Amino acid sequence: MKIAIIGGTGREGAGLGIRWALAGHDIIIGSRDPERAKAKAAELRERTGKIPIVGETNREAAELGGIIVLAVPWTGLVETLPALRPACRGKIVVSTVVPLTFGGLRLFTPPPAGSAAEEAQVLLGDEARVIAAFHHLAAHELAEPDSEIDCDLLFCGDDAEAKLAVVELGASLGLRSIDAGPLSNAGAIEGITALLATINRRYKRKNAGIKITGM
Amino acid sequence: MKIAIIGGTGREGAGLGIRWALAGHDIIIGSRDPERAKAKAAELRERTGKIPIVGETNREAAELGGIIVLAVPWTGLVETLPALRPACRGKIVVSTVVPLTFGGLRLFTPPPAGSAAEEAQVLLGDEARVIAAFHHLAAHELAEPDSEIDCDLLFCGDDAEAKLAVVELGASLGLRSIDAGPLSNAGAIEGITALLATINRRYKRKNAGIKITGM
Repeated sequence: MKIAIIGGTGREGAGLGIRWALAGHDIIIGSRDPERAKAKAAELRERTGKIPIVGETNREAAELGGIIVLAVPWTGLVETLPALRPACRGKIVVSTVVPLTFGGLRLFTPPPAGSAAEEAQVLLGDEARVIAAFHHLAAHELAEPDSEIDCDLLFCGDDAEAKLAVVELGASLGLRSIDAGPLSNAGAIEGITALLATINRRYKRKNAGIKITGM
Repeated sequence: MKIAIIGGTGREGAGLGIRWALAGHDIIIGSRDPERAKAKAAELRERTGKIPIVGETNREAAELGGIIVLAVPWTGLVETLPALRPACRGKIVVSTVVPLTFGGLRLFTPPPAGSAAEEAQVLLGDEARVIAAFHHLAAHELAEPDSEIDCDLLFCGDDAEAKLAVVELGASLGLRSIDAGPLSNAGAIEGITALLATINRRYKRKNAGIKITGM
């Protein structure tokens, strides 16, 4: 697949890019700053030994990608997404974005739409096929591709074909995928990241993850 | 411990009562209707062979209990809790309540306070020591005390001593307890129940649960 990672210079996006490149996908790292995108792409080419990793502006990345992965900080959605709306029309858009606010009254702070994924849907319009997924993977774990990730992939969305693509992307990371229903469940999936962040801090861990039992 | 279960005639509350009674705790089943509470208590005494299970009005149960467990439907919080406020003063109050709305636009529908547990805190006042816990256990699993429950106990709250009591209550059910931080994380814990309900329906399971990995 041709995967555009919007905000791909961040730790989470770059970690996903490393793993997916090693699994044989083409990666377009997107950034507001094309020079940073190109530098990160060069770094990932060197780390992975894979050639098909390029860097572009977020907008060009969205135009080139077959699947668009949103890996921007959640406060960046409103400024980033409107310009990508035409490029995302009809495409699968995977939101990995988690609305966390550190140092405030509450760690998990979803927007009025209910979740970052639903906010992305609003900003990109109905024709973007938005799926919420890949919220629970630690960036440092993604960046160490020799280690197995002990976590299920919980995802949700309203487009069955897009979900199949996400299951494939999950399999590229070695993850078991679990379909958690419609996009209106995205807030509940995103909220788990707040729990994992809290548990990591409280128990001095780095890799807290989640598995569904009883399957 | 002397555990008052508010809404203890419901399936979830009764299931918890069975398990805790078998673990040696005293149980007060609370209900709006004292006759139903007494009938349920008699049923649980018969099922468990344990004597210290009684039924009372919710208010009397809260007065008798050392620990108060809220197991009412979430739409019942506003009508039930104000009358219990004096009895809950200074006591540990465990909210198992999950704000789910079936058949609407969204399954997980937390109140403006952010979670059912935080709403309970508002309704009971600052002196109640509210902990959110026991949201992810299927009622039918609780009611089969010979089977092991394959699920972690995620809990949160702002009172360290109350948390220790909840860890003990979890150990009575054979559960590993994981402290997920302050009460402001309760919405994220409650939301997981929406995911588990969706997963059970979608995969035709009955016992979907959650475990934290990387610990």
